[in-house]
Amino acid sequence: MKYTETKTFTFAHSPDEMTLKSGVKLGPITLAYETYGELNKDRSNAILVFHALTGDAHAAGWHDGAKNPGWWDGMIGEAKAFDTSKYFVICANVIGSCKGSTGPASIDPKTGKPYGLSFPVVTIEDMTVSQKYLIDHLKIKKLFACVGGSMGGLMALKWSVLFPETVHSVLLIATNYRHTAQQIALHEVARQAIMSDPSWYGGDYYGKGLPARGMAVSRMIGHITYMSEKSMEAKFGRKLIAKEKLGYDFSHDFEVENYLKYRGDSFVQRFDANSYLYLSKALDYFDLSEEGDLTAVLKNVKAKVLIITFTSDWLYPSYQSKQMVKAFKANDVEVSFVEIDTNYGHDSFLVEIESQSKLVKHFLDNVAKDVLL
Amino acid sequence: MKYTETKTFTFAHSPDEMTLKSGVKLGPITLAYETYGELNKDRSNAILVFHALTGDAHAAGWHDGAKNPGWWDGMIGEAKAFDTSKYFVICANVIGSCKGSTGPASIDPKTGKPYGLSFPVVTIEDMTVSQKYLIDHLKIKKLFACVGGSMGGLMALKWSVLFPETVHSVLLIATNYRHTAQQIALHEVARQAIMSDPSWYGGDYYGKGLPARGMAVSRMIGHITYMSEKSMEAKFGRKLIAKEKLGYDFSHDFEVENYLKYRGDSFVQRFDANSYLYLSKALDYFDLSEEGDLTAVLKNVKAKVLIITFTSDWLYPSYQSKQMVKAFKANDVEVSFVEIDTNYGHDSFLVEIESQSKLVKHFLDNVAKDVLL
Repeated sequence: MKYTETKTFTFAHSPDEMTLKSGVKLGPITLAYETYGELNKDRSNAILVFHALTGDAHAAGWHDGAKNPGWWDGMIGEAKAFDTSKYFVICANVIGSCKGSTGPASIDPKTGKPYGLSFPVVTIEDMTVSQKYLIDHLKIKKLFACVGGSMGGLMALKWSVLFPETVHSVLLIATNYRHTAQQIALHEVARQAIMSDPSWYGGDYYGKGLPARGMAVSRMIGHITYMSEKSMEAKFGRKLIAKEKLGYDFSHDFEVENYLKYRGDSFVQRFDANSYLYLSKALDYFDLSEEGDLTAVLKNVKAKVLIITFTSDWLYPSYQSKQMVKAFKANDVEVSFVEIDTNYGHDSFLVEIESQSKLVKHFLDNVAKDVLL
Repeated sequence: MKYTETKTFTFAHSPDEMTLKSGVKLGPITLAYETYGELNKDRSNAILVFHALTGDAHAAGWHDGAKNPGWWDGMIGEAKAFDTSKYFVICANVIGSCKGSTGPASIDPKTGKPYGLSFPVVTIEDMTVSQKYLIDHLKIKKLFACVGGSMGGLMALKWSVLFPETVHSVLLIATNYRHTAQQIALHEVARQAIMSDPSWYGGDYYGKGLPARGMAVSRMIGHITYMSEKSMEAKFGRKLIAKEKLGYDFSHDFEVENYLKYRGDSFVQRFDANSYLYLSKALDYFDLSEEGDLTAVLKNVKAKVLIITFTSDWLYPSYQSKQMVKAFKANDVEVSFVEIDTNYGHDSFLVEIESQSKLVKHFLDNVAKDVLL
């Protein structure tokens, strides 16, 4: 087996900086990315995959010595939905994250210390634009497709609007075109949990420790929103943790409590708290319509579009995607919409491999007829 | 206007203690309670109202100098749903709370100091049984009705099973018969937020300060679950706080963020953190069926039952009440079920006054035909 490796690309613009949506300049910017499959001769078979909030560039395959494959390995690979015998698949870690791309935990070249909260607030647009530089660097003029679930879906959608001439098709999964009050509220609680932890030190905790308790609480909230009421009930119900009966104290009684603690604690080790603040903020800031007319915003979209939602996803409910379908249709964009019936909630985009694969393959095959010779 | 006042009743059993479900003894126990209207000659017109998690005995009327009336003033009073010209309405603060009844912030007579975490874990059953002593004290043999929304509904349900001969009718609103994995999970996050605050001091913060940050975060989570996606969107959407544009920093941008902070901060002042732990635990422990057959558990229920749910209540979804309806019907209990179409989420039981009043009046009038002369 060939192991996959993460590469990096650092912008070398003059003057080494990118102007962000806020007006602030950031640079140099490094993007960590992986690729799978081979770019064809006319460079027309590239698919750009955008990851979700806590994801990374390692979308598929295995790293040497790893216990798990990439986060979307079920979807990307030979004979899989994104078939690497046909397509050249790219996934880059977003700026603001902590998985190899420039983010708040990176060293600020001006001070020689981690940015912390001096890192500028980045937006979904900034994250998307930075990856356009990577695609240019790879000498790809037009993507066969760009695709994302959850936060990745916002980026794929943004790409279709920012760079309409550079993409043949767009796949938007379990996503939205603007963060709603509830989505903002849930993120704000997670942020407050982190920022309330005295070990957060105003974002300047690097080298001192970790805001571990706040991070764990924020992740627990996250996990509840990624599952559904039904999937939690099916997985845990009221099962007790190796106990004959209730403990009548404040230790854990129920498996669901232990599970959340486990997910919370392990998250502390694998993700940077400040990155969580920055990326959740980027999501909350996202409003493709910018309080205006969504249909008008989508008027230059040239790509064919596939939108997938999941019945039990209460974090990004289907009705939001249906509004997008309507706006695409009003622009005569060729859009397919499928709502998959499942209990797995928002996490479905990571676990509903078979049902998604069928839809994705069929959609890509159709696009391929026009694009690939 | 006549102001309402909170009275107290302290158990004077020998040996002054009540044995809790856990086997632990607690006592003496004080219950704070209020009454509205007059008890009739044959003591047959008493309605016992149970409050929700952070509620109190002050269900209706005005306290001298108060800015707001009792928490269910829209429902209780002359010519209102629970018409105090006909009925004698009682509401007591639950044990474990901090609104006048014995709870973790009360002084332990054995030590002369606040109980803190040495207060025993109480259950919905314990809370219900303790109020039976109050009803006995008031020399009421049989209640005309008992009623509760949310946690109060669990208590009303428990009463109907524990003391079937002592109640003519039961009203269960926005409630459930067993806490599900998601309900437990949401509470556990709130508890972890409190217990992660260094100012919680293992529950021993009395006289030292307050675990204010943890409390605020836990309340923010609570508020999201009490509203619905639609009601949050209608109330806040993406409205900015007196700003022309996004701030590109980690201060608040959106009204929904400010609102949650306000609700979180004000909660710190009005509720005891340990009480929140105890009452949320009592809720999570609640399983009327005790993993058994709900129908069998309800077999001795004699009361007429009205169950009300709300379409947008995702914390206590209607399907759970429908399971109760089925189990009541299997026991030939006269049960009416109404799902009110509203966007107000779980909070509906506090705000949907008109629609609930209509149902409640009609139901009580029917019961009155048989009970009141």
